[in-house]
Amino acid sequence: MGHGMHGIFVVGLTLLLRATTVGAQEQPKLNLMPMPATVQTGSGSLRIDASFSVALTGHTEPLLDRAVQRFTRQLSRQTALPFSAKASTKPTLTVHTDHASKEVQELGENESYTLSVTADGAKIEAPTPLGAMHALQTFLQLVAVSPDGFAAPAVTIQDKPRFPWRGLMIDVSRHFIPLEVLKRNLDGLEAVKMNVFHWHLSENQGFRVESKKFPKLHTLGSDGLYYSQDEIRDLIAYARDRGIRVVPEFDMPGHSTAWFVGHPELASGPGPYEIERRWGIFDPAMDPTNEKTYKFLDELVTEMTKLFPDHYFHIGGDEVNGKEWDANPKIQEFKKSHNLTSNDALQAYFSGRIQKIVTKHGKAVVGWDEVFIPGVPKDIVIQSWRGQAALAQAAAQGYHGILSNGYYLDLGWSAARHYAVDPMSGPGANLAPEQQQLILGGESCMWSEYVNPENIDSRIWPRNAAIAERLWSPQNVTDVASMHARMRAIGGELEWLGLTHRTYHPQMLRRIAGPDATPEELSALRTLADVVEPVKDYTREATAPAEPTSATPLNRLVDAVPLESDTARRFAELVDKYVSASCRDVNAAAQLRAQLSTWRDNDATLQPLTQRSFLAKEVAATSQDLSATAAVGLAALDFATKATTAPDDWKTQQLAIIDQANKPKAQLLLMPAPAIQRLVEAVGTSGSCGAAK
Amino acid sequence: MGHGMHGIFVVGLTLLLRATTVGAQEQPKLNLMPMPATVQTGSGSLRIDASFSVALTGHTEPLLDRAVQRFTRQLSRQTALPFSAKASTKPTLTVHTDHASKEVQELGENESYTLSVTADGAKIEAPTPLGAMHALQTFLQLVAVSPDGFAAPAVTIQDKPRFPWRGLMIDVSRHFIPLEVLKRNLDGLEAVKMNVFHWHLSENQGFRVESKKFPKLHTLGSDGLYYSQDEIRDLIAYARDRGIRVVPEFDMPGHSTAWFVGHPELASGPGPYEIERRWGIFDPAMDPTNEKTYKFLDELVTEMTKLFPDHYFHIGGDEVNGKEWDANPKIQEFKKSHNLTSNDALQAYFSGRIQKIVTKHGKAVVGWDEVFIPGVPKDIVIQSWRGQAALAQAAAQGYHGILSNGYYLDLGWSAARHYAVDPMSGPGANLAPEQQQLILGGESCMWSEYVNPENIDSRIWPRNAAIAERLWSPQNVTDVASMHARMRAIGGELEWLGLTHRTYHPQMLRRIAGPDATPEELSALRTLADVVEPVKDYTREATAPAEPTSATPLNRLVDAVPLESDTARRFAELVDKYVSASCRDVNAAAQLRAQLSTWRDNDATLQPLTQRSFLAKEVAATSQDLSATAAVGLAALDFATKATTAPDDWKTQQLAIIDQANKPKAQLLLMPAPAIQRLVEAVGTSGSCGAAK
Repeated sequence: MGHGMHGIFVVGLTLLLRATTVGAQEQPKLNLMPMPATVQTGSGSLRIDASFSVALTGHTEPLLDRAVQRFTRQLSRQTALPFSAKASTKPTLTVHTDHASKEVQELGENESYTLSVTADGAKIEAPTPLGAMHALQTFLQLVAVSPDGFAAPAVTIQDKPRFPWRGLMIDVSRHFIPLEVLKRNLDGLEAVKMNVFHWHLSENQGFRVESKKFPKLHTLGSDGLYYSQDEIRDLIAYARDRGIRVVPEFDMPGHSTAWFVGHPELASGPGPYEIERRWGIFDPAMDPTNEKTYKFLDELVTEMTKLFPDHYFHIGGDEVNGKEWDANPKIQEFKKSHNLTSNDALQAYFSGRIQKIVTKHGKAVVGWDEVFIPGVPKDIVIQSWRGQAALAQAAAQGYHGILSNGYYLDLGWSAARHYAVDPMSGPGANLAPEQQQLILGGESCMWSEYVNPENIDSRIWPRNAAIAERLWSPQNVTDVASMHARMRAIGGELEWLGLTHRTYHPQMLRRIAGPDATPEELSALRTLADVVEPVKDYTREATAPAEPTSATPLNRLVDAVPLESDTARRFAELVDKYVSASCRDVNAAAQLRAQLSTWRDNDATLQPLTQRSFLAKEVAATSQDLSATAAVGLAALDFATKATTAPDDWKTQQLAIIDQANKPKAQLLLMPAPAIQRLVEAVGTSGSCGAAK
Repeated sequence: MGHGMHGIFVVGLTLLLRATTVGAQEQPKLNLMPMPATVQTGSGSLRIDASFSVALTGHTEPLLDRAVQRFTRQLSRQTALPFSAKASTKPTLTVHTDHASKEVQELGENESYTLSVTADGAKIEAPTPLGAMHALQTFLQLVAVSPDGFAAPAVTIQDKPRFPWRGLMIDVSRHFIPLEVLKRNLDGLEAVKMNVFHWHLSENQGFRVESKKFPKLHTLGSDGLYYSQDEIRDLIAYARDRGIRVVPEFDMPGHSTAWFVGHPELASGPGPYEIERRWGIFDPAMDPTNEKTYKFLDELVTEMTKLFPDHYFHIGGDEVNGKEWDANPKIQEFKKSHNLTSNDALQAYFSGRIQKIVTKHGKAVVGWDEVFIPGVPKDIVIQSWRGQAALAQAAAQGYHGILSNGYYLDLGWSAARHYAVDPMSGPGANLAPEQQQLILGGESCMWSEYVNPENIDSRIWPRNAAIAERLWSPQNVTDVASMHARMRAIGGELEWLGLTHRTYHPQMLRRIAGPDATPEELSALRTLADVVEPVKDYTREATAPAEPTSATPLNRLVDAVPLESDTARRFAELVDKYVSASCRDVNAAAQLRAQLSTWRDNDATLQPLTQRSFLAKEVAATSQDLSATAAVGLAALDFATKATTAPDDWKTQQLAIIDQANKPKAQLLLMPAPAIQRLVEAVGTSGSCGAAK
């Protein structure tokens, strides 16, 4: 499998953020994400000005030249310094690379590097271009504005990844995602040192790859929204340039309705089939009993393994409900005659056949949990959407695995919740060391029911940076406050790369508000948008005003707001600090009061808008809830700061208001409500720290 | 000249925004910019949903198909409705075009159209695709969010431009502007119905066109930043698709240092020459006495007139200081022997020679004011940077002209000030009708000393929309409040086109603030940024902290803030309303007080940032000024609302504080200061309207 390196990764975090020289100067705050394995800060800093230059030494190749060009362009964007293209006799940064990476990037190649910065210059050393490129990204994150100009603090970093497989999956089938959007997200992956792009290319809702062998797959199965083979080669080269492997997924035998539009003969049902427009799990599945299916797949895999050079080839395998198999007498007959006692067994038979086809072409199979069925050959990687237990179970039986459960970006979890998910925690922690090494890492997943080119960046970023850190950094890097601070910083860096996770939000709010909205109305809408989040997990379908399909416009507030409200998170932190203190802090109270007053008064400004725009109208109740709960919070603060007790039924009444506000409306959650509830519950529990303001 | 249409444009504004049916319903507010010649609103509206479709009738051609695709994509962006690509049997919008436009778009082609919208559908009729494309842009501006979904109000529009030449000049030489940035600005020009892109391609600081005949021009004269001929053809086709002519400018005989790097033999001085890095007027000029100069220019014009198909060819001609001519004995000799008694006469000789060369290739010459010298042939268009008087003087003598004086976007004028500049006002108004027809329109100019790809959109937009309206709409469309409201709406539309005039501003502020800035600090920086403007007119060089060059980073607050502060303008409007009322309005006072309190408290939040970032540090004094003047304003309001008189020396003291704040610092003007001054001056002049709040 070529990833023997994995075992020798030793975590060394002892010197993390400790300066070797202790002086009067303030400790530099390093906005590095993912946090390197070891960081030693020094004294002084390296000034970055227009004379900045880079030199390559040791092994060189065009890929490294391009990496340096990209790095220089990005540094120029961050600083607006116009760097001259000319070589310098005394380069500011020297990059020494020992030898080439594999021609086709492989799992487990050495990605380590050292980076040292002093006031006189900076030096990168790496065995391979992969490490050198990671080091350049680290350097970009070190550069910050200072009192005297742009500078990188003196530092020595020795770094290497904890896991060799650190990926992002994007589903381009449920909503088509154009090539340039994928490219800017690959730029983002490079920035956070992820090294796998898992391209979920086929689904019930679309077959997105040009097949020259079976053109009906993409011409009839994609509404014209597919990638040409030239475009795919272009994207693979783009990824390769950034140290990113591209693993294609062709989901089989379920999740394949779009294949059957042009090739109904592959299906287990009678057909005809149309491209699926709805979301969910559907009946159509390939016929695993028909030799023609395997002949077809053999020819397709022949074509696609040539197109995609990576060693791994993902065959999906998830969520076959078996209904078409059960309804097909021929298939029932086959099961009996082959002693396949369940549909699981039938799928294992199918998986085995496909795996042979893939292996024949020199590739290894990746599949979702379902392909891990007793008897399946060991040369397979299990991608676990079911959880760490399933992953550990597979590893215990000698199977390689990667974790995706806990890393589904579309479920709307907070960054902190994703951050707490570790591939090695729970059952994985009890595995023998050689079994632990079978756990290769993980992948975040961007399923695309509710994303399109406009909002996809905001669904991936910045939260994906927290997952990237989990997969790169030592296991004991778990400080959530530090993660939040660094994630905010990298959020800005990602914008310089062209990601739109911040810039598109205001424009989507303007669409909701309409061109006639006053600045005050727009600001009120922003205030509301800043404190709501879409409903979580799998509740989006169930709470939808009408059955959502691929034609449903994604123009509502639920589509526009980030999946995590920073404002609400910081408010909750402040509340918790306030109520947990032994006495009431008047300054904290003043801060809370200012925030709550803004929220209380917000609805009055927003209401006119809700009468002019249908997109604003649907959030009118949420806006009222925000004002009502803010008023509750202010009343609670009044009691708290005066250190008086509230009337007996007061709490009951207030909690009823909060209960009402906690009910999702327009598929939105009002995020400050639980913190306000804690304010109410804390009334009468503590005294004031000093005189009330 | 092919623009005979111009004379028959009849302005008919009688029904502007008057509904034909008067009912209880609210008058729809139309965010049309430029305002059409006539608008009649009807009743009801046309619903825009996913079933929307367009049909072309009459004359059709691929250019129209592409226009409809572009229109549909843009409508989809505005609404997020996914339109199906399929043709409909009952199209929502029918576009009827009579006949083709000229193969090479000409000045004065018919650009008129009619557009009628009813609840049942919409219809466009136009003589040419140019009019049809304008109508599609008008339709896009009609579509807005409503209580029931997206809709276009019922309306009948008959429209045509006032002037046939409505352009934007972009200087791509002082800072190179990449092709994709130009393209998105061409999209903006289409949206506001401008029809000329004047491409200022050569300067002291750069020769930006690939010349296959004289490759040293671009290889030695551009730092590698030039457009290939393929790119130029691509841009011209892109412009043609949007009804925009491309007029190239090769500035001669001055403003040409970059030519001389590769071709010193063209110059009047001894050389050698280097690309100029500074701003200003420089000595190098072509040698107008050397026949080799004309041979060279003949060959270059041969090449460039083939590359640029437009009938007009701009030869610059501005700002020759004559110093190289005066210092060259050979040139002095030539002047004597040819009876050229001044450098003006020498330049007229040069202009005449160049004009003959250009005319030989079937083209007509455009030049800046300076080419209008007694004796210059009449087949020339004068672009006036000097003013309406110069323009009228030329017209009086039978010369065609376009106005640019008053339309220099780089000078930082307000939209209202540009809007008030009319090519026909002043001396132009007194011209005979046939002379007035010689005034073809105007061009806004984006000189690029202080713009780069990052901030150029914000320097052009949205103010350029006001100039576009001046050149398109009837002369009596002059309501400034209406212009501001509509300009704000079109500002949003332009963002959907990919222009970055709003989105880049926050990111530039983040660069100034640094990655460690708290949300509160960032918000305080935004509050300050919202009320400052760069110094105006030609004071940028004089007030610069160090001599600015093309290598000066454009990363300061002066580079990041819009050239016009909406916040300050609206504050001033509120102050004027407040102080001019017969008694003091308590609600207005409360609004002013809230705004002033925010400003007064802002500096305390911002100060820590000014200690961490050199880019924030330089605006520390301005931030203090904002707080100080806001405190003054609050004190003034206190006196005003209490209707008491202030102590005698109070006003003097306050006005001294404001005087201090009125001094530019870090090249920024504190825009609310004059309005606060009016508040101070109004103390004691009026009574309260009611009880103070």
